[in-house]
Parts: sequence; structure tokens; C-alpha cells
Amino acid sequence: MRQEFVGDDSMRGQMAWPAGVPEGMRASATAIIGNVPPTDMGDYPNLEWLQTWSAGVDKYLAPGVLGAAVQVTNATGAYGQSVAEHLFAMMWSLMKNLPGYRDNQRENDWHDLGPAMSPRNAEVLVIGTGDIGSTFATMVKGVGAHTIGVRRDPNKPAGGIDAMFGFDALDVLLTKADVVASTVPASPQTHHLLDAHRFALLKPGAIVLNAGRGDVIDPSALHDAAPRLRGIGLDVTEPEPLPADDPLWGMPNVLITPHVAGGNHLDVTVERIIEIALENVSNYAQNRPLHNLVRR
Amino acid sequence: MRQEFVGDDSMRGQMAWPAGVPEGMRASATAIIGNVPPTDMGDYPNLEWLQTWSAGVDKYLAPGVLGAAVQVTNATGAYGQSVAEHLFAMMWSLMKNLPGYRDNQRENDWHDLGPAMSPRNAEVLVIGTGDIGSTFATMVKGVGAHTIGVRRDPNKPAGGIDAMFGFDALDVLLTKADVVASTVPASPQTHHLLDAHRFALLKPGAIVLNAGRGDVIDPSALHDAAPRLRGIGLDVTEPEPLPADDPLWGMPNVLITPHVAGGNHLDVTVERIIEIALENVSNYAQNRPLHNLVRR
Repeated sequence: MRQEFVGDDSMRGQMAWPAGVPEGMRASATAIIGNVPPTDMGDYPNLEWLQTWSAGVDKYLAPGVLGAAVQVTNATGAYGQSVAEHLFAMMWSLMKNLPGYRDNQRENDWHDLGPAMSPRNAEVLVIGTGDIGSTFATMVKGVGAHTIGVRRDPNKPAGGIDAMFGFDALDVLLTKADVVASTVPASPQTHHLLDAHRFALLKPGAIVLNAGRGDVIDPSALHDAAPRLRGIGLDVTEPEPLPADDPLWGMPNVLITPHVAGGNHLDVTVERIIEIALENVSNYAQNRPLHNLVRR
Repeated sequence: MRQEFVGDDSMRGQMAWPAGVPEGMRASATAIIGNVPPTDMGDYPNLEWLQTWSAGVDKYLAPGVLGAAVQVTNATGAYGQSVAEHLFAMMWSLMKNLPGYRDNQRENDWHDLGPAMSPRNAEVLVIGTGDIGSTFATMVKGVGAHTIGVRRDPNKPAGGIDAMFGFDALDVLLTKADVVASTVPASPQTHHLLDAHRFALLKPGAIVLNAGRGDVIDPSALHDAAPRLRGIGLDVTEPEPLPADDPLWGMPNVLITPHVAGGNHLDVTVERIIEIALENVSNYAQNRPLHNLVRR
């Protein structure tokens, strides 16, 4: 089986590593490891399998992009550690007033911002308890929090979750949470899941975190609710990138990071993507079923 | 036994809660719970015992401040959780580039700051392994780090520490550490413990944290070394407060908080101080030995 490496080596370490596949190579390729432009997919008539380095594959699954016979496998499972750690770091930062102290530092201003918060005995609500949510829950449980999970099928357990509920319990659970962390992907069911009604249910001083998809939060509801919350940590926004004139940038207790929780910002993520790909190359070569299959 | 409450109730929740003891009450007082001004101590001729709400008591122990018969007890043990959590939050913040993202947020600027760091498999060196250092070590061990402790008596174990060494091993250990956290108090032995020579031993990309006393770090050595480190988190500085024109304020990878890691910023700290004081009130009333005795 012939293999070609078409990455640009000078881009190693970038968040997205573009692979410019020479046009003459496209017609004969039966498998692609990497995220080539979805608009080019018509150039690959013999494609049997696409393995992405991303977890999200929605652009490839859109109607008409891929031929009926193309299997798609993603890199789900590679990002849990990295995204959960980023959520955890944002939570701690907000608990200890670090964004405010950073703002004061920029003014050369030494003054106390008052009470901090501890995760000890805090009630942490994790919306979406897949790889990321479960890893985050395990981390907060490790520092003394009580964890509650919400997932579509509450009978399916997840590591790190003390008590699991379905989405029908969400409103009640929001009234009890000290920290709410969303890790759910974009879907019609989760669009503006946290709206004005649900923000109003939160306790004063609660923390809200989002590292799933930006549109899980209604931005205008967030904007209105922010002053009564301790802090909001967002690695994802609606839209992305957040426009320079968006009012969220200037809200003192909103901490924004530019969708960097996952990506390849930890070595462990890259190693795991390579493991997944190598395993699937071996499966493909030996005609065994592929792992992480999202389209068959 | 007569007890008088002389705190100003309106100050409840402040970092320092001043207690203005009426002059007429001073001559008869045999015990004080709280940090009254050291300069007033001559007004208490019948004093037998002083219980501070602070851990540091150096101002009371200075020669001539207290009569020979006065026992002093402090609140050691009340601050470990709070200070360790603050150190932990600063570590995570620097690992995930959050101070830099906060700076970018202030410019409405959405852009990736590159690789993050994980505590998993990191080598964390804890200088001073008392209550604070041991609690911090337990926390970082819980998220996958390997912990090394340095203390005066390396044969005395401490919770959370995988391997303990004496100060003679410090130079070698600094060359291996991914994170260095100092929790040692001010003393002639620890003045500028981290000087230019020791900063030069650190690996590029290491993180340095200080929540002990500011003068453990030589500020000019820190200033010179900062560019080759990932980040430096300081809750204590030399001097304090840090003057408005100090160059440390403007260093992008130095994160400064104004000596707020301890104080009474967590409820658990206040509860623990009260526990210590109540226990000692009972000991004092029944002529039993006092706990947390630092001067007899």
C-alpha cells in the first residue's frame, strides 16, 4: 500500500496543519489522513476512507460533500484531557479573581478584590458527559466538588459524575449549581440551551463555563446575566471569531479564550490523534472495521 | 471568666478586622484574641496570653514588645487550604496562557497564543513543605504531577510529597523542575533564596510560584530570568505593596496578585481560625497547655 506525506513540515505545531494534496495525486487516493478542504472532495473519485485529526466532522457530513461509499472516522477521544484541563484552569482562575487581578496589574494597581471561592463542597453541574465532560468532572471531584451530570441517556454512567440526570432535570439542577460547565457539541437540541430563562435560574455568584460550542449560550442572555454571576469562562463564542466590536470582550467578569482548549496545544492530544490514525491505518490495510466511525 | 467583644462589626469580612480595645479595659485584660497593634502592648500589664488570627507573629516576638510571661499562639494551619488553592490557580492559569488571553481580551483580540502545558507528568518542586506546601503538593499530585519537596529536615515526611530533600539538594532539583513553588516564610536563611544563580539553573519554559514571603525571590534576578520562563505567579513581592513604578507590573509573563492567597478570603479559613481560638480559650480557662504555641 503506497503512502504519501503531503503536509508542509514548516507548519508543524500550528493549530491547523494544512495538507496541500497535489492535484495529480487526488484521483488515485483511496484514503486520506487529515482535514483536507471539504470543497475539494469532488477531486477524490476513488476515496474509501477519510480520517480527520479533528473531532468535529460536520463539514464533511453535509449532503453532497462525500460519495456514498466514503467512510469517515474522527479523532474523538484525543481532546478530552486538553479541553477538560482548560475548563478546569478557567474555573480556578474565576474562583480566585485572577482575571480581575490581571486587569489591576495592567494599571500597576495593588488592591484586594475580596472573597475567593473554593471548589471544596461546591456543586458542579456538567452538561454533556462524554470524554471532555467526564474528564473535567473527575478533576473537580478530585479537588472536593460534588458533581452532577446531564446527558441524553441518564442511565448511561460516566466517570467522575456523582449523580446523572436527563435534560428534563436541567432547570432544577441549574438552581443548585455553583459551577455550570457545558461541553455539548452544536446541534439543534443544544442551540441556545442556556437562554435568558435558564440564566435567571442560576444562583448569584455562580460560575458558567463553555468549551463545547458557542451557540449553546444565548449571548444576549449571557450579557444580561453576567453582573449577578461570579464569572463566565468562554473558550467558544457565537460567532467565532468573536467580532472586535462585540460587547462580551469588555465585560469584566467574562474570561474569553479564542477556541484553544483543544487543538494540538498539548502533546498528549497529538500523540492520541496519531495513535487513533495508526490504528485505523492498520485496520484499513487489513480490512478490519475502523474505529471512531462516524459515517459508513 | 469575663469576655468582651471589641471588634467593629461593620468591618466583618475585611482582610484585617481592627479591634480598638478601650483604654480602660487594657489594664485588666489577661488574654487577647486578635491582632491588636504591637505598639500598644505596653498597655497590657496583666497579659498572660495573646492568640493572633494571623500565622505570622514576628511583630509581637520582636524584643521588648511583650512581657516575659506572655504566651503567644498563632493561627498556623488555618491558611493552608486557601493559599495552596491560590497557588494551584496561578499554576493552571500560567499553564494555559490565561494571563495573555486576558491581555488580548482587553484589546478585543481573538488570537491563539500557542502551546499549553499540562501538570500531567510534570516535575513540581515545592520549597517549604508545611501546611501550605503539603496541601499544594497533594493538589498537583492529584492532577498527575510528580512532587519533590525541599525542607530543613528531609527526614520529616509531608503529605503529597513523592520525594523529600534538604536545602543542599536545591540547586540540582531546580535543573529538573517544570514548576517551582515557594511557600517558605521570611527568615535570614530564605532571603533571596532564588537569586540570579538559581534562576539560571531553571529549565526554559519552567513556572515559578511564590506565596511564601516576597523576599525569597531576588526581584532583579526574576526580572532578568522572566523572558526564558513560561510564567511567574507572585502573591507576595519585595517590597509590598509593589510600588506603582516597579518594572514587574509590566512583564507579560509575570502574574501578580496583591497578597490575597490567605487572609480571610475563604470561609474555611475563618472557620478554622475560630476553631483554633475556641479550643485555646477552653485550654486557657482550664489551665491546660495551649495549642499553636510560638512563645511561652
